[in-house]
Amino acid sequence: MSPAASGDQVQDALVDVDVDVVVVGFGIAGACAAISAAEAGASVLVVERAGAPGGSSALSGGEIYLGGGTPVQQACGFDDTADDMFAFLNAALGPHADEEKLRVYCNDSAEHFRWLVDHGVEFRPSLYDAPTWMPPTTDGLMWLGENSWPFDTVARPAPRGHRPPAPHFAGKLLMDALVAAAEDVGIRTIVDTRVSSLLVESGRVVGVRVRHYGEERELRARKGVVLATGGFVDNEEMLAAHAPALLGHGKVSDGLDDGSGIRMAQVVGAATRRMHAHEVALTVLPALAARGILVNAHGQRFINEDTYPGTISHAAVVHQPGPWWVVVDEAGFDDVPAADLWGVRPTHAAETLAELEADLGMPPGSLEATVSAYNRCAEQGEDPLFHKAARWLRPLRPPYAAVDVAAGFHPGDRDSAAPATGVAGFTLGGLHTSVDGEVLSLTGAPVPGLFAAGRATAGMHGDGYISGTSLGDGSYFGRRAGRALADS
Amino acid sequence: MSPAASGDQVQDALVDVDVDVVVVGFGIAGACAAISAAEAGASVLVVERAGAPGGSSALSGGEIYLGGGTPVQQACGFDDTADDMFAFLNAALGPHADEEKLRVYCNDSAEHFRWLVDHGVEFRPSLYDAPTWMPPTTDGLMWLGENSWPFDTVARPAPRGHRPPAPHFAGKLLMDALVAAAEDVGIRTIVDTRVSSLLVESGRVVGVRVRHYGEERELRARKGVVLATGGFVDNEEMLAAHAPALLGHGKVSDGLDDGSGIRMAQVVGAATRRMHAHEVALTVLPALAARGILVNAHGQRFINEDTYPGTISHAAVVHQPGPWWVVVDEAGFDDVPAADLWGVRPTHAAETLAELEADLGMPPGSLEATVSAYNRCAEQGEDPLFHKAARWLRPLRPPYAAVDVAAGFHPGDRDSAAPATGVAGFTLGGLHTSVDGEVLSLTGAPVPGLFAAGRATAGMHGDGYISGTSLGDGSYFGRRAGRALADS
Repeated sequence: MSPAASGDQVQDALVDVDVDVVVVGFGIAGACAAISAAEAGASVLVVERAGAPGGSSALSGGEIYLGGGTPVQQACGFDDTADDMFAFLNAALGPHADEEKLRVYCNDSAEHFRWLVDHGVEFRPSLYDAPTWMPPTTDGLMWLGENSWPFDTVARPAPRGHRPPAPHFAGKLLMDALVAAAEDVGIRTIVDTRVSSLLVESGRVVGVRVRHYGEERELRARKGVVLATGGFVDNEEMLAAHAPALLGHGKVSDGLDDGSGIRMAQVVGAATRRMHAHEVALTVLPALAARGILVNAHGQRFINEDTYPGTISHAAVVHQPGPWWVVVDEAGFDDVPAADLWGVRPTHAAETLAELEADLGMPPGSLEATVSAYNRCAEQGEDPLFHKAARWLRPLRPPYAAVDVAAGFHPGDRDSAAPATGVAGFTLGGLHTSVDGEVLSLTGAPVPGLFAAGRATAGMHGDGYISGTSLGDGSYFGRRAGRALADS
Repeated sequence: MSPAASGDQVQDALVDVDVDVVVVGFGIAGACAAISAAEAGASVLVVERAGAPGGSSALSGGEIYLGGGTPVQQACGFDDTADDMFAFLNAALGPHADEEKLRVYCNDSAEHFRWLVDHGVEFRPSLYDAPTWMPPTTDGLMWLGENSWPFDTVARPAPRGHRPPAPHFAGKLLMDALVAAAEDVGIRTIVDTRVSSLLVESGRVVGVRVRHYGEERELRARKGVVLATGGFVDNEEMLAAHAPALLGHGKVSDGLDDGSGIRMAQVVGAATRRMHAHEVALTVLPALAARGILVNAHGQRFINEDTYPGTISHAAVVHQPGPWWVVVDEAGFDDVPAADLWGVRPTHAAETLAELEADLGMPPGSLEATVSAYNRCAEQGEDPLFHKAARWLRPLRPPYAAVDVAAGFHPGDRDSAAPATGVAGFTLGGLHTSVDGEVLSLTGAPVPGLFAAGRATAGMHGDGYISGTSLGDGSYFGRRAGRALADS
């Protein structure tokens, strides 16, 4: 779409805008809000700043966290319940996850699966059964740590990562389906158009001001506005103020997650919540890590290497001194499927652990003590420290290799010019909303006419994060927001 | 002061209020703002919610972080510079400390020492030369980690914890002096009076609304208002929204740190910053820890045990799985001065490490490996992992003892009815202010007539905290706010 064409479209759109609902942002939250509002009878206009729909969602892995007994789970031989799903997420997204949001999300999850399928999203009934960021296959189901310690002690394990059929990044397929579904229900869209502020009359949000090629226009919405503008990882000033842990790292975004929706809502009195919360990702190389050990700069293990790499990344980046190394032996390295290595080769190799720890700058005896304790227990099929599953336990034998898991590929890291910290992330904090997406003010009362969903809001997350829960809460609470606004 | 008497005083005060500046809160930030405003020629009224001045400051240890060559430092034989002080604080309060505030704070620190002394605060010229939370002596100077790794590698070590002459808690002496100084310069005070909101006219803060025994009155301030209302550790809803890590723990406060100033400023458009940041304290028993080793639930060391206990607490509570244990031997335990033990006795004792680790619920061999590596290096006067100073390095010999450092005394923990997590803390995030205490709005421009200081603001702190920097930034930026408002 050329700028001129989109400019004309905006002019056309601006001339005859007459809608119930304006949705700002056409990622997954905006798409689902728009579809639901339209299906509830509202006329809907979606305003997207980029040249095409999709947002950061389209660049993602495309996993959606779904459970409670979906047809895909059943086809793969797993029983699941909303209660097990809740128990797992409350642990994995916690401590301090939002239990109210989590409860409705889990209770409605099987229904949400059907809704997504009904709107064109495909999930194939096969499981990718090994630790990974994103399967190199078209399998529709994956584990996100449910079968690993300590999560296997708080809920009956069932895989709940549902994904469209694409190797690695499946977000494009997901968004193609939802954008097509939105078009099918008659939603109007204007692109290349930036919303600069909210229109407020007598304390009620009644539309938005847009800027396009320097021209400012007002778009009125009879019922109100849904902000689905994304997070703020692309706004350095907001990061410094609220989520400094992400400063200097790579950004998992489409480059437009600048917090604009959060800021324009704050100006009209909206409250925020958990603005420090964030996802972080390291390469980790999960298939390799599971076959070896992961250690911090002191040569200490700190987590079971077979859990979800997002959980490993958070444990490493937030809590452990780096660099972080996977130490493996030859047999372990050779056992990794090529597609799961992302072309990474060991950066260090040595015949003895004394040599390797010296090469890695660790104190004498540190890595040796760790491997010796690991091997002693692995021989008996045990990992008393971190409970890695027996499937992945095997004593490490010389020669040894080490891989810097902050080097190489980063899931979703868009910005190759970013400082080479080996870490990339996005923000999880944002506007304070009710379970129906009402934006709440500093006093706790809804801001009339204003709804929000997705990463512009503080979602279900506490201190933890699991892939699929951002697309998950964006889509599910986007639907709730769209419907609630249409019904208002 | 009886309620009736203070009620009458409020009535009297309300009848004839005619001031330039209203300061809300009479902790250290409010005291210093009031004094400075008065000394710059303004008439000042301080409104305090409690029955007497002092706030949380009066319940604290009373350390103020000062350096750059104070007379007390010089008398104790230490040269110091503002640059070394800056380098240390930037590391200890970081990452992501506020370098602009830190720079003026360090540059003016020797002058700030003189100002405090000129206003009646006494600091005796002697050093308490061992790791401690609060010296059991009247020494005026203490270390806050400056001489421990890694801080000794980023700045020339000099002790900078300055404290009034009281064993342990010296905050009362500190506040007695500053309250007296405030009275000396003619500041009026009303107590038992809650400020409910800010008075705004034409976008400018022109006073406050107060509530006293159900009656609401307006107090006008010709120049403006300084909010020195403290943090929000006593507000569970704000903790859940912004600093959930403190939920369920003890509170270091006077019970009135409910974020009222932050909230009333937000309502008139103020921005906040770093609302998640917080201090946390564990018992630690620093004198004991320095003589032994500190390990996490896996029996792993994670920090040099001779650094400041606040730094140890943060490392443990935020980053390491608990419980956290100090493991010592008999010689180490017997070497601790009784006054530094706070009556704590070992909870576990054993002849062998195998026995002890079993008693502590650690996997076989875990603690043994840690102690073996520690002893091997300690024999050579080295700690290659965490660089504990040679002074405290000595191999541990049977019999061994372990102390749960989350049990027992907690510095400043007011609330003995709190859940027995063994952790207590307070909040460090708050209003976004300029170096002169102007409260900044969501757009970054000052809110006319509104200033703030102390824990109602986001101070100099990044992710770290060192004792003395809260009283330090409260007093220093309180002064700047009072002067800037008086001069406005």
